[in-house]
Parts: sequence; C-alpha cells; structure tokens
Amino acid sequence: MRWNRKDLLGIEDLSVEEINHFLDTAFSFREISTRPIKKVPALRGKTIVNLFFEPSTRTRTSFELAGKRLSADILNITTAASSLVKGETLIDTAANLEAMKIDMMIMRHSASGAPHFLASRVKASVINAGDGSHEHPTQALLDMLTIKDKLGKIEGVNVVIVGDILHSRVARSNIWGLTKLGANVSVCAPRTLIPRFIEKLGVKVYCNVYEAVRDADVVYILRIQLERQKSNYFPSIREYARLFGIDREKLRHLKKNAVIMHPGPINRDVELSGDVADGENSVILEQVTNGLAVRMAALYLCSGGDIESEDTY
Amino acid sequence: MRWNRKDLLGIEDLSVEEINHFLDTAFSFREISTRPIKKVPALRGKTIVNLFFEPSTRTRTSFELAGKRLSADILNITTAASSLVKGETLIDTAANLEAMKIDMMIMRHSASGAPHFLASRVKASVINAGDGSHEHPTQALLDMLTIKDKLGKIEGVNVVIVGDILHSRVARSNIWGLTKLGANVSVCAPRTLIPRFIEKLGVKVYCNVYEAVRDADVVYILRIQLERQKSNYFPSIREYARLFGIDREKLRHLKKNAVIMHPGPINRDVELSGDVADGENSVILEQVTNGLAVRMAALYLCSGGDIESEDTY
Amino acid sequence: MRWNRKDLLGIEDLSVEEINHFLDTAFSFREISTRPIKKVPALRGKTIVNLFFEPSTRTRTSFELAGKRLSADILNITTAASSLVKGETLIDTAANLEAMKIDMMIMRHSASGAPHFLASRVKASVINAGDGSHEHPTQALLDMLTIKDKLGKIEGVNVVIVGDILHSRVARSNIWGLTKLGANVSVCAPRTLIPRFIEKLGVKVYCNVYEAVRDADVVYILRIQLERQKSNYFPSIREYARLFGIDREKLRHLKKNAVIMHPGPINRDVELSGDVADGENSVILEQVTNGLAVRMAALYLCSGGDIESEDTY
Repeated sequence: MRWNRKDLLGIEDLSVEEINHFLDTAFSFREISTRPIKKVPALRGKTIVNLFFEPSTRTRTSFELAGKRLSADILNITTAASSLVKGETLIDTAANLEAMKIDMMIMRHSASGAPHFLASRVKASVINAGDGSHEHPTQALLDMLTIKDKLGKIEGVNVVIVGDILHSRVARSNIWGLTKLGANVSVCAPRTLIPRFIEKLGVKVYCNVYEAVRDADVVYILRIQLERQKSNYFPSIREYARLFGIDREKLRHLKKNAVIMHPGPINRDVELSGDVADGENSVILEQVTNGLAVRMAALYLCSGGDIESEDTY
Repeated sequence: MRWNRKDLLGIEDLSVEEINHFLDTAFSFREISTRPIKKVPALRGKTIVNLFFEPSTRTRTSFELAGKRLSADILNITTAASSLVKGETLIDTAANLEAMKIDMMIMRHSASGAPHFLASRVKASVINAGDGSHEHPTQALLDMLTIKDKLGKIEGVNVVIVGDILHSRVARSNIWGLTKLGANVSVCAPRTLIPRFIEKLGVKVYCNVYEAVRDADVVYILRIQLERQKSNYFPSIREYARLFGIDREKLRHLKKNAVIMHPGPINRDVELSGDVADGENSVILEQVTNGLAVRMAALYLCSGGDIESEDTY
Repeated sequence: MRWNRKDLLGIEDLSVEEINHFLDTAFSFREISTRPIKKVPALRGKTIVNLFFEPSTRTRTSFELAGKRLSADILNITTAASSLVKGETLIDTAANLEAMKIDMMIMRHSASGAPHFLASRVKASVINAGDGSHEHPTQALLDMLTIKDKLGKIEGVNVVIVGDILHSRVARSNIWGLTKLGANVSVCAPRTLIPRFIEKLGVKVYCNVYEAVRDADVVYILRIQLERQKSNYFPSIREYARLFGIDREKLRHLKKNAVIMHPGPINRDVELSGDVADGENSVILEQVTNGLAVRMAALYLCSGGDIESEDTY
C-alpha cells in the first residue's frame, strides 16, 4: 500500500486501506517527538504555507511544529495580515504562492469546499485544516489513531458524539472515518443541532445523554460555540450545560475502560465538566500528541515521501 | 563587476552596470527554487528582519521565502505587534535591532525616504521594500528581469504604464530603471493621476488608453487603490474601469508578442479584466517567480556575498 | 557550580552563586553574536514557544533571536491569535503545548505569578519574560551583566532607580538582584509611585532627583507608562518630566564614569531626554546586546545544557 494522493481534503474520499496506512505512518512518526533531538531531515528544503482564513492557535501550531520537526521551511499567512484584505481572490493568493514554488498549503477556511476548489487548481499539495462545517480530516485521523491506540481497535467500538453535530466539521469527518472502519457511531444533541437525514450516514440519533452514553466505549464531546445561543439553537448556555454538558453524574454508568474525547479548546463546565476533562478516562491530551504525529504524516505522505521509500522516517 | 553597496534603497541611484549585474545574479538564483531541495547555505547564520510598517503579504512572504531558501534566520516585525505602538521612534527600533547584531533589515514604510534615513544611521544592510510613493526597487528589478526574460532585451522596448502614476512607487522605480536600460517608457492615466513634470524623466504621457497601447511591447497595469475615489482623483471606480481598465477590447490591436504585467494584488475587472490577467499574454505569475529570485539576489548581494566569490551560488 | 533549575521565574529565588554563574554563562555567549556565522548547534531539535499574553516586540524578538542562534525551533503565540480568545484557560493552553512535546515556554503575562503557577504544573521549562508588576528576571540579569561589564563589579556600586517603582517589575527584579550582589540601591519617584515598605528590601528612598543622583554610579531610568496619568498617579506628563525627567541639567554633578541605563522603549523627553539617552554615559544599547546573551544563557541553562558539559558553547 502506498499513498498516491497529493492532497488530504477529507475523510469521505479515503478508502479503508488509505486510512489504515495513514494511521500506521502517523503511529511511526509519534516516536520522533519523544527523542532528545526532535527533528528528522525528511522534508528539508520543502516550503509549506499555513494559510489560515479563520483564527486557530492549536491546529496552526500543530502543523507548524509538524513541519519544523520534519525540517521543512514553514510560513504563516493569516487573514488579518493577508492581501485578502486588499480584495485578492483565493485563487490569486494560491497562484501567487505557487509561483513562489511552494510545495504545500495547509488551509483553513470558513467556506465548505474551499480547499477542494484550490486543490484542483494548483500543483502544490493542499491539506484541509478545516473548511466551514464540512470536513476536518486531520482531526478525525488523530481521533481514530487515539481510539485505536487506547482501545486496541476501531471495528465494533461504540462511539457517541455529543454536541452541535449540525455545525461540526469534526463530527462529519469522524462519522465518515469511524463508520468506514466499522465503528458503531451515534450522535446526541438537542434536535435543533442534529442535521436532517443524518441517519443515512449510518448513525444512530439520541436526544437523551443518559441513554446515549450507556453502551459507549468512546464519548466524544464537541465544543459548543457560545455564539450559537444568539441564533436560538438552544435556549441558553446554562440550559444546554444542564441537559447535555457531560459531567460525572451523566457518566455514572460509563463503562470502566471507556474514553472521553474532545477536540479542544474546551469550554470547561459548559459542554464538559473540568473533573471529567482531567479525569482518568480522559484521553484529551493524548489526542493532542497524536495530532502532531498525524500532521507529520500528512505533510510527509502528501509531499510524496511515501513513494520514495517506506522505511526512512 | 562587483556589487559594493550595503543597501538597496532605490533604482534612481543604481548604474546600468549595477542593474545588469543584479539581474544576472537574480537570474542565476531562479534555478534554486526549482530544485527538489530548495535551499542553499549561502546566508546560514545571518539574521534578517522583515520590518513592515505597512501590511503586505506578498512582498513580506517573498522576502521571507528568499531568506529561508538562502538558509538565513528571518524574523517578522509588523507594526501592530511592534513597540512602535508604545511610541518608540524608528531610529530607536533600528538601533535596538542592530544592538542584537542583526545583519539586514527589510523595510516597508509609508514615509518616503524612511529606508534612506535608516540606512545612513545603521551598519546593517537596509533593503527598501517600498517607501511611501517613492521607490520599490525589488519590484522594478523583478519587472525588468521579466521583460528581459520574455522579450530578450530591455533596450528599445516600448513600455506603457497604465494607472495611478501619481501615487505609485512601482511606477517611479520602473521609470528610473527602464529608461536607464534604454526602454521607451510612456504612462497613461487620467490627468489627475499623472505627476506634474513627469516628462522630465523621459516619459511620454497618454490620456487615451487605445493610443497608449498601440505600439506597446509591455502593458504594465498598476493596481488602483479603491480608496482614492473618495479623494476625488476620479469620479468613480466604474468610470475609471470604463476608461482605463484594461480588457480584451482595449487590447484588440495589441502586438502578438506583447506582455501584460501587473505588480499584484489585482483588482479583477477594475484596472484589469480577469480574462486578460489569465490570458496568454499575461506574465503576471512569472513576475512573482522572478520576484523571489530578485529578493534572493538582494539579500545575497547586500550581505556581501558577491565580494567573496562569484560562483558559489 | 551547576545550574539545576528547569525554570527561570524570578531573581528573588536565586542565590548569589546562581546569579554569578548565570552572568558568566551569558558573558561567554555574547561572543557568538559577533561571529560571521551567528549560530551554534546547542539547542538543535529543541522546541521553544514564545507565549506572550501582553504585546512586546523587544523582549519577544530578543528571545526569538536567542533561540535561533542556538539552533532551536521557536514558535510565537500571541494573545490576539491565540485560542485564549475562545476562552481556554492558561493551564489548558500549556497542557496542550506540553502534549506536543515542547521543551520550553517563554511567558509574558499581565498577572503576577502566572509563570510560577504554570511552572509547577508542566514538565517543560518556563522562563518568565515579565509577569504583571512582579518580576522580569532576564531584564535584571542583563542589567547586572551590563553594570558588571561597564563598572567592573556590582558590589559597593551605587544604583539609583528613577521612575514608576510601584508598577515596575523591572525595578523589583533589579532590587532583588543588585542588593543580593552587594550594590547600594536607592529609588527615586513621586511618593505616589513608591510602594509602601520598600525600605524593607534594603533600599533608600528619594523624592528629589538632584539628591538621588549625587553619588550614583548607575542612574537607571524606568519607562513611564503614559496611561498612568489618567489614574492620577501624577498630575501630568509635563509635570512628571519637569520634576523627574532625567536631562543634562539634573545630571550636571554626575560622576564622570557613571552610566545611564533604561530598559526601553524610551519615551524620549519624558522620563529621559534624547541627548542623555544618546550621550556618552548611556549604555542603553549595550543593555540590548547583553539582553540577547542573557536570553541565550537562559534557554541554554534551563534546557539542561549546563549539566552535560561546561565548555561546549
């Protein structure tokens, strides 16, 4: 199995073999960050641009570190500082970067499909770091790596995703990936935050948290965007927290080995209580560690590293 | 011929020999960015500061990449984040950077002459990345490299610059450079956007685009600052676009081998129609590619690279 | 003597031996920045994060350069761009960075004690780059290195600190350090800007500048925060400048070899006249040069460099 894609745009397109090969590669990269000298020359002389049209410290930092640990040159371009404020189109920005012979663009954009649009028009690799409410593939891959790592497998695992499913690219990418790998995925949220026809993706729907978590091996809690309250998706943050906020009480029948996951940053005591976030079942920080390895794998595989050899990293 | 300047402040000061030597150096650097490993050790251990008092993604990014491809350490300082917000003077900022033993400052500033002022007071090299409406030397050099590359020569070439000549440092630097190298330069704009006495620079003036482009080998279109409209330099953007916006219709008698240039970012369908920008005569993206090579040359030559040897890059 | 601390949080905690060892290390690092290739491999493959919750160009830049000259990978995270705007707690931010296996955090924060809080909760090294009005240890160390360098010793030297002592972390760290090393420290300011009980730190208090500077070997002028005027700490900037602004007139009886210091950035002609700042007794730019060496020492010592060997830098 080899990785033959120049881009990583979403999980929906990937085959089971591609996902597994990706996860194996990421797993092998994880060790690099535990060395005293956390750097390998794999991408020396390659130029990577972090092109972020939405603010994000974590994801941007994770990609930036991934690039540096592979010895790539990495450049940050964020909206505020960008010539987009001068009215340049996305394609012009990308064409200009490409004219400077960059190798890869990591892109976050508020418009669903923006990275796909870009990828079809440039020779450089495009990695989707989150597009609108569409996909966030490296997040789903790091989540799958974490589940596989903690529970030994993904097939047959019961995963319940709790929170704002409607607007969540994290939910969407995880649903694609986890169902492909044979997990039993369900979602749990107020009715207003569940997309219509979601059952068609092979997902079970719960509106009651107690019921939803009963058989879960993984409780995956989404960040609630506090600004949704204004749009009347739920009556109030307090009301949301009371009914859907995950705390010890709601998890009192949780399986002993079940894991608690969250993509971060956490609104403590809103969607997730602090004691559960820091508790023994939480693997939230392992997600972050795996995130770095997944991003290293993404940069490595999409830059064609996989084609040259399989055992140089 | 050797480059003996510590600074690159403007084109007005440069001799024909210096310009030609610079263009040859830039040409030879262009190849580096096409290698699989786009990096040479020429400036390893040198410290370069991007000191931008006006926002600019393209120029800053181009210099940042140029520095990284030469293995320099490069640091970004932009106004918003700078201690200038605490009221520090330009000279104090520069003196402080110099006390940290930096080798080079790349400076963009809204005040004409700011880089010259700085260069006379610091030992570090100063590269002007655009000062007010005065000069933008690396832009003119990349434009000259592009013309030479596409048309085989600069001498005798007919160049018409269309747009806001009055406020344009790009126009000014190009007029200095192109006339020095023997091109026939003319400008075309509404009367309000043409500086008085411009003919004294050896430039012909047109107010009619059709006439201006008739014999052109190069049509160089300037970006129109949309905010000029408020200052009544022209009645409206629409009116400007109708009379001076370059489109297929206005170019219908264009010479077959003529080239269309623009310094970017483009206001599509204002000063330049999208189809012409993307058309077969457009060399706008080649300008960007050449820009990177020109900035590599600027960093290399001003850091004294030229003195040690002529064939190490 | 070896450095056995993972963190550099303040001067109050340090022993005289530790301070002297630190200053010796910094002194030996100063030479690196004068080499043609200003780079040593000491921290290659280490990851350092500049975590700034208050804006600062100088200190951030100084640390960034220090990191680069030691070949570390260094990442900037500033408040505006940070996920703290999404309401993440300080500890969550740090835990996330740690999960990405970073080696060191350089932190500036408006809350006194924030770096200490962090240091006790993470395995990574924490360097305090200024916390509220509490401590700014690298500033005091660079000041001590400068005094030792210019006057040959610190013991017995008369240092007067002029300005807003009440809110100044620079004053506090210098008072701890200088008194430990045997200097005679006095402070001079309007009564409203002198903390109560400051005499308990072994410091003499003056309210008259002429008297204060009479026997001084070092006149250390603090930056006045212009916004303090609104809080009625002093009647007006003009009034402050008239009574406490250091100029030639107030220094007319200054000892011939006395030095003028300022942590920067200077409000010229407010707390310090331009001619004195640029005059022969001023060592303000030497402070900046020493600052870089001190930050290199801080990164080196706290990363455990000292333990492996004492003569590799």
